[in-house]
Amino acid sequence: MALKTREQYYASLREMKTEVYLFGEKVDNYLDHPIIRPSTNSVAMTYYLAEKEEYADIMTATSHLTGNKINRFTHIHQNTDDLRNKVKMLRLLGQKTASCFQRCVGMDAFNAVYSTTFEIDEKYGTEYFARFKKYLVYVQDHDLVVDGAMTDPKGNRKLPPHQQEDPDLFLRVVERREDGIVVRGAKAHQTGIINSHEVLVMPTIAMGEEDKDWAVSFALPVDTKGIFIIYGRQSCDTRKLEENAEIDLGNPTFGGHEGLVIFEDVFVPNERIFLNGETEFAGMLVERFAGFHRQSYGGCKVGVGDVLIGATALAAEHNGVASVSHIKDKLIEMTHLNETLYACGIACSAEGAVTKAGSYQINLLLANICKLNVTRFPYEITRMAEDIAGGLMVTMPSEKDLRDEKLGPYVRKYLRGNAAYSTTDRLRILRLIENMTLGTAAVGYRTESLHGAGSPQAQKIVIARQGNLNHKIALAKEIAGIKDSTE
Amino acid sequence: MALKTREQYYASLREMKTEVYLFGEKVDNYLDHPIIRPSTNSVAMTYYLAEKEEYADIMTATSHLTGNKINRFTHIHQNTDDLRNKVKMLRLLGQKTASCFQRCVGMDAFNAVYSTTFEIDEKYGTEYFARFKKYLVYVQDHDLVVDGAMTDPKGNRKLPPHQQEDPDLFLRVVERREDGIVVRGAKAHQTGIINSHEVLVMPTIAMGEEDKDWAVSFALPVDTKGIFIIYGRQSCDTRKLEENAEIDLGNPTFGGHEGLVIFEDVFVPNERIFLNGETEFAGMLVERFAGFHRQSYGGCKVGVGDVLIGATALAAEHNGVASVSHIKDKLIEMTHLNETLYACGIACSAEGAVTKAGSYQINLLLANICKLNVTRFPYEITRMAEDIAGGLMVTMPSEKDLRDEKLGPYVRKYLRGNAAYSTTDRLRILRLIENMTLGTAAVGYRTESLHGAGSPQAQKIVIARQGNLNHKIALAKEIAGIKDSTE
Amino acid sequence: MALKTREQYYASLREMKTEVYLFGEKVDNYLDHPIIRPSTNSVAMTYYLAEKEEYADIMTATSHLTGNKINRFTHIHQNTDDLRNKVKMLRLLGQKTASCFQRCVGMDAFNAVYSTTFEIDEKYGTEYFARFKKYLVYVQDHDLVVDGAMTDPKGNRKLPPHQQEDPDLFLRVVERREDGIVVRGAKAHQTGIINSHEVLVMPTIAMGEEDKDWAVSFALPVDTKGIFIIYGRQSCDTRKLEENAEIDLGNPTFGGHEGLVIFEDVFVPNERIFLNGETEFAGMLVERFAGFHRQSYGGCKVGVGDVLIGATALAAEHNGVASVSHIKDKLIEMTHLNETLYACGIACSAEGAVTKAGSYQINLLLANICKLNVTRFPYEITRMAEDIAGGLMVTMPSEKDLRDEKLGPYVRKYLRGNAAYSTTDRLRILRLIENMTLGTAAVGYRTESLHGAGSPQAQKIVIARQGNLNHKIALAKEIAGIKDSTE
Amino acid sequence: MALKTREQYYASLREMKTEVYLFGEKVDNYLDHPIIRPSTNSVAMTYYLAEKEEYADIMTATSHLTGNKINRFTHIHQNTDDLRNKVKMLRLLGQKTASCFQRCVGMDAFNAVYSTTFEIDEKYGTEYFARFKKYLVYVQDHDLVVDGAMTDPKGNRKLPPHQQEDPDLFLRVVERREDGIVVRGAKAHQTGIINSHEVLVMPTIAMGEEDKDWAVSFALPVDTKGIFIIYGRQSCDTRKLEENAEIDLGNPTFGGHEGLVIFEDVFVPNERIFLNGETEFAGMLVERFAGFHRQSYGGCKVGVGDVLIGATALAAEHNGVASVSHIKDKLIEMTHLNETLYACGIACSAEGAVTKAGSYQINLLLANICKLNVTRFPYEITRMAEDIAGGLMVTMPSEKDLRDEKLGPYVRKYLRGNAAYSTTDRLRILRLIENMTLGTAAVGYRTESLHGAGSPQAQKIVIARQGNLNHKIALAKEIAGIKDSTE
Repeated sequence: MALKTREQYYASLREMKTEVYLFGEKVDNYLDHPIIRPSTNSVAMTYYLAEKEEYADIMTATSHLTGNKINRFTHIHQNTDDLRNKVKMLRLLGQKTASCFQRCVGMDAFNAVYSTTFEIDEKYGTEYFARFKKYLVYVQDHDLVVDGAMTDPKGNRKLPPHQQEDPDLFLRVVERREDGIVVRGAKAHQTGIINSHEVLVMPTIAMGEEDKDWAVSFALPVDTKGIFIIYGRQSCDTRKLEENAEIDLGNPTFGGHEGLVIFEDVFVPNERIFLNGETEFAGMLVERFAGFHRQSYGGCKVGVGDVLIGATALAAEHNGVASVSHIKDKLIEMTHLNETLYACGIACSAEGAVTKAGSYQINLLLANICKLNVTRFPYEITRMAEDIAGGLMVTMPSEKDLRDEKLGPYVRKYLRGNAAYSTTDRLRILRLIENMTLGTAAVGYRTESLHGAGSPQAQKIVIARQGNLNHKIALAKEIAGIKDSTE
Repeated sequence: MALKTREQYYASLREMKTEVYLFGEKVDNYLDHPIIRPSTNSVAMTYYLAEKEEYADIMTATSHLTGNKINRFTHIHQNTDDLRNKVKMLRLLGQKTASCFQRCVGMDAFNAVYSTTFEIDEKYGTEYFARFKKYLVYVQDHDLVVDGAMTDPKGNRKLPPHQQEDPDLFLRVVERREDGIVVRGAKAHQTGIINSHEVLVMPTIAMGEEDKDWAVSFALPVDTKGIFIIYGRQSCDTRKLEENAEIDLGNPTFGGHEGLVIFEDVFVPNERIFLNGETEFAGMLVERFAGFHRQSYGGCKVGVGDVLIGATALAAEHNGVASVSHIKDKLIEMTHLNETLYACGIACSAEGAVTKAGSYQINLLLANICKLNVTRFPYEITRMAEDIAGGLMVTMPSEKDLRDEKLGPYVRKYLRGNAAYSTTDRLRILRLIENMTLGTAAVGYRTESLHGAGSPQAQKIVIARQGNLNHKIALAKEIAGIKDSTE
Repeated sequence: MALKTREQYYASLREMKTEVYLFGEKVDNYLDHPIIRPSTNSVAMTYYLAEKEEYADIMTATSHLTGNKINRFTHIHQNTDDLRNKVKMLRLLGQKTASCFQRCVGMDAFNAVYSTTFEIDEKYGTEYFARFKKYLVYVQDHDLVVDGAMTDPKGNRKLPPHQQEDPDLFLRVVERREDGIVVRGAKAHQTGIINSHEVLVMPTIAMGEEDKDWAVSFALPVDTKGIFIIYGRQSCDTRKLEENAEIDLGNPTFGGHEGLVIFEDVFVPNERIFLNGETEFAGMLVERFAGFHRQSYGGCKVGVGDVLIGATALAAEHNGVASVSHIKDKLIEMTHLNETLYACGIACSAEGAVTKAGSYQINLLLANICKLNVTRFPYEITRMAEDIAGGLMVTMPSEKDLRDEKLGPYVRKYLRGNAAYSTTDRLRILRLIENMTLGTAAVGYRTESLHGAGSPQAQKIVIARQGNLNHKIALAKEIAGIKDSTE
Repeated sequence: MALKTREQYYASLREMKTEVYLFGEKVDNYLDHPIIRPSTNSVAMTYYLAEKEEYADIMTATSHLTGNKINRFTHIHQNTDDLRNKVKMLRLLGQKTASCFQRCVGMDAFNAVYSTTFEIDEKYGTEYFARFKKYLVYVQDHDLVVDGAMTDPKGNRKLPPHQQEDPDLFLRVVERREDGIVVRGAKAHQTGIINSHEVLVMPTIAMGEEDKDWAVSFALPVDTKGIFIIYGRQSCDTRKLEENAEIDLGNPTFGGHEGLVIFEDVFVPNERIFLNGETEFAGMLVERFAGFHRQSYGGCKVGVGDVLIGATALAAEHNGVASVSHIKDKLIEMTHLNETLYACGIACSAEGAVTKAGSYQINLLLANICKLNVTRFPYEITRMAEDIAGGLMVTMPSEKDLRDEKLGPYVRKYLRGNAAYSTTDRLRILRLIENMTLGTAAVGYRTESLHGAGSPQAQKIVIARQGNLNHKIALAKEIAGIKDSTE
């Protein structure tokens, strides 16, 4: 069996003993926690859509390792069509959840580790590639969610790992044993960690020789002894705790989450280790993972953007101004920006190339172009959404007022817009826009768009490196007739 | 006594019987309600600073009616220095509260009603101007906070008041009596209404002859029988209800609020009526109030922006990157945008002109230029703040985790940035940035910047009207040598 | 023989009797005219590169009609690889000419007429498709340059052709004969018309039933009796007439041109007619041609942008500031914008789809996204180029001063920048930047980027139509839980 | 007599023997040279408008030195009204010339040298201030045009003057004599130098002790022996040489110019020296001059922008699209940007302050904000102008074609837009827009907006210095409750 149903996914999580803390307290039954559950529902959608015949091409693939039909989230890209289908899958899921659905970090990690371990073995005669393939078959066969964990806390950002005052600020090997290693440290901002079966750890920066103990990659079940998670709080998170809350949530069903994951002297058996001291490959792993993940944003954020554009168009109808020219113009501009992101996601896929391991990776320059636009356009789209939605979005009474016997009639009377629509629906759509621009989903649609897969400056550095300025200078000299005389 | 102390202001509110609802329930002691109190503190700052000698020039003025020293918030501008000092006062208060301090709507309403009533009387021989001056002396002498209430719910935005299906969607006169009138309707998004002693109602659009019953302006105590308020909910509002919450609030002391104010058949005595059916003056009142209020944003939002820029610069230090060139460049750009707004606020003041009533009003074109920039730049500033702050701002553990015996040491260990600073202070400054970009203060700094004093399209309409395109066409013809032959 | 050499191309033009007017005078030997020749050189580059083995994949293709190796500019796209290769070919040519090389309008016209005539025949049983294929084989076999001529003068833009006061403001059939038709009218802004062997005329807008006489498409040799051209003047065009001018031209070898083409009662034989009164297909032809042409700009303008970025980077070196961080940052931003355009060109190609005729066309939505970005980013790139180049670019002495015996030494002494480079080369590179931002090439890189293939508003209309707002609204409703009750 | 008439100004230039070179040749009668004359006409407008009663308040002032009525261009600002009136005068002149009218560099230099010499004398007991006042009375009495000359060629920009390989790359004292000094060097980009009676030289950067010989300021007649000028060539400059050219010039009457001014061992008598080795005052002089000049751009560029907006609005009428909503929206946006610049010009004036010398200077922070916006918005305005104008602007036939007997009727027939207007006028207005966006005036409106008074980076440095980040950090700490503990 390679494909889990949505229900099987939920059931599999119930069996885990993941150690989670929220607001200073241990959460025993996190699957049913109102703050956490929406994020689980988003991941569950990656299973649900894979069950649907209509999405089979996009949501599933054939494993090149086993020949089985697998969820595309566990697939190694075999060609540029796979790369493009990945982007389409992510857009679809963004449309269905209006949230971060978290599972792409694992897929991107698989593809980065796959091709990198091949090249490490090639140089060192190690066996990481075989190990990793075996692990991957396990993941594919059990249709697992895996958190690709990269970001260390980093402490003083100007110092390499081995020079940090506290050496644990980058995750590291603290003990080497016959049968494996013991690691200590933390990974910050881990998307979907609580909804994951496994965590696949990678280093977070290029490293030098003295950073050997920090150059480590491995995979473990998330509920391994010594791993625990402090849940990150989001804007408006506690609205989900309010009694009978639905409208005020904006998106009552779906969400995302990030967590600070602590590794308190955790043992990793040898067969789960994929990098161990080969420092010069840390940078390759980072660059490949980041490259895939920067491509991802050309899909997922576009899908979320689709929902925001739709919500805004509907709000315009509720406001009775859908046909006004400046409103239409803004909706076109929102669409334009959103599709520009998609174009970048598609382009870096279509221009992808084969790796030494035989898998496909994206065009690195264009993937970074994609992400740099993602750090900008969602903010523009957001602003236009708020412009069209109107101030009511952030000044309107609560759902409890709406449902109150005395106050409800006043709210319905005075907040009615276009009489063709119900006031309640108007409030629903405004709360959805609030959710995406200021609330829990804004964390994913805005801040994560900025910082996920690396902050804008990280993309600029890659663009500078990949932009080939010298070639451009040569072109200009040819045109201008410059022959480098020194006269 | 014309100046209240901060304590006297709090005490005066305690005597009021304002009817407030929040989350479906009546709030009896709103002054002590943790969600509401920060907004009261912001208003209180307008009293506190007026007590200080160092701010006397900016915070106080001499009444042209009584010769008394008064709070500038109750002053009628007598020259362009007054107009510039208003902008400076608002910037100062934005710096001290990082919030909307709410009191300017009253000041802007006073100045609009003052000059407009003079011109109504001039045409109709009415006595509104004398009435209003008397009212203003009362306000000045008691140093009152007055909510200038303009925005009606508006229902179907394409129809004038008298054609609305529900006539109450614009506030209107439902009964005319010997001693006064009875009004019904609502005002939406009322800033600071609960912290106000009085409400000064104005119409919200230009009106035609058939809108007579809707062309009404008057003032009443906020706790007048028949007036009640449904409190608007904000992003992250309930964090303030969390036990011992301080850090997670970002700005634990100050805030703003908006409310939906319902007028359920409220009686207004004659001496408090300042417009009553003179429909052609509704537009003038709206334009003047909006003009003053668009100027205001060139002060208050700049002050809030100062705090955000400072917070961001501090976050950069905590992140250890304050000296990195792209960080410095972004801080300069934030400053540049913020000061551009200030320049617009100052310019429309310096170019102000005398009204028929002898008071001064701002340059209307430049005030609209000011506001249109305000609908844009805070969003840019916000994005750069999030860029520099980093993703931790929205993924970090809660204050309870930080204070927890078991978790606290992990949070402090792993979230330490630049070792020269405490982790707790790092979290404080990040929570402040979260507050201003996504949380309660984002309502004021982002959405209100867009929609307060009219949405961007409203400014564009005034700019089109005031831009004098024909004069510019004539200039171009002169240069191009066009003489309008038809050859 | 299907591929002409560059020399054969020049020779073929010499045989033509094209009637050209420039500055009020007939130009007899236009190939040797200093103002026109650079534009011919640009077209010639499309032949020259096709001779090179290293560019064979990109510059040539195999005719699906004859199986011969042909220049890609005469090819009908057979798959999405063809579409992507087209974009790459155009980028390459932009890099080699830093100009508009003019030949893509023909290629885009071929592909639009090809698939459209198939569908006309399908409906009407006409024989346009067979005729056109025959014509295309002729073009391929002789490796011809064809001007795809679409833009009519349009007169009053609010009226359809048949309601224009002067019916000739859209090109039309004025006489129908047994053996063909006689047409009258004009086509404006015709790129490369003088360097073309043939002109392929198409209608410029969607048409209604009463516009039958204007719904016409056909091909003719450019030197057909009755056709004549008034050459369009460009910024700085007469610098090319200056004695010994080289440096001051910026780009001394290459250029582009546009012309106003007049059809003064020109006879078209039946075998060259591809649309004749089937009004409902006028719109399809326009949309397809425009779609292909909007894709084109994601290649050619990117190549020109590469040269401008290179020139700017070199100017920074001459100024001694290449390593300054704000300079590097601007060069990265220029690259980012330029590659975003490329990503859009690639994406609309990769997402292309098969037509009924079996040929491939681009994704229409993404091609319009591409072009809308092209209307913006070259202006941004231009501004940054001028920023880095410095004011000297527009204030420096002329080439004659530099070469003057008395003045030359002063110019060389005082305008020396980084001593590692020659002053003369510094002036060369600055003049190239001037050429691309203000001079002859600015016409192509700036204004044509705005208006070529339709002004921005035309793209917005297609984006609105293709953006599927209703689907997005449905997505938002699903998320917000809106079921269209009217409560 | 303190005010010259326009004719007297022309006559006074005829008496000068200024040594000018253009295209490698000496120009004997430069006043009648078709390329140069339009720039003289622009300066002459500063005299012409001063003759007009209606502009007396703006164009003239009362000398604080003599009590005479003088041209404001020779005035020392006595209060903030003077500063605002300066901005208004510059806007007016921009409107009347659509060009750079060149005279403000002198005015800005007077005001910078005036207050700086006072402070030098205060420190060193020198007599520069008295000397300069005497000189200024001479300028005022004779109503002279003075070129304020600051920009040295600068060579290697990373080295101070005394470390340059060629010491002449900054203008310097090469000989000190009893009766004066001898100077050598050059000033680049000198605006209006040929239309000036005098040149007032200032250093171009802050200097250290070893730069003594380069810290020099003085004034001389432009036709002093040893001074000569190489005229800078502009885009489209030679159109002015075309026979009967008028329409193709766009702006047939007015223009601007820049020149490279060489000082070949020129003697300066003592009474004309205003700085001579007091190196620490070089920076003050630069900062003050730059501050005034950055303010200037908030006037002159706004006036030129007014003409461009008008021309664009007229082009829209000719195109028959003046009432289309996206056109109107763009015209509003152009106005918005233009008035934002004006607001900045006014604001830095209104917030001006008194100097030690008793004169008034602008608010330095806001003047730099002004200029930084000027480096951006004209480019945006330009792009929108080109958008609305349409491609015809750069592809239309020449004036000679229009006037040709055979071709003229075709041009008039086919290029007719809105039938209510003449085709000739349509071409006129399009050529004006071409002139301002690509042609001679684009040099002033675009490139000079970027680089005049210092490139954008120079403004950023001042903004960083004046922005007071520490105060903002203190504000943020106060709000966030940070007390700098290190816990």
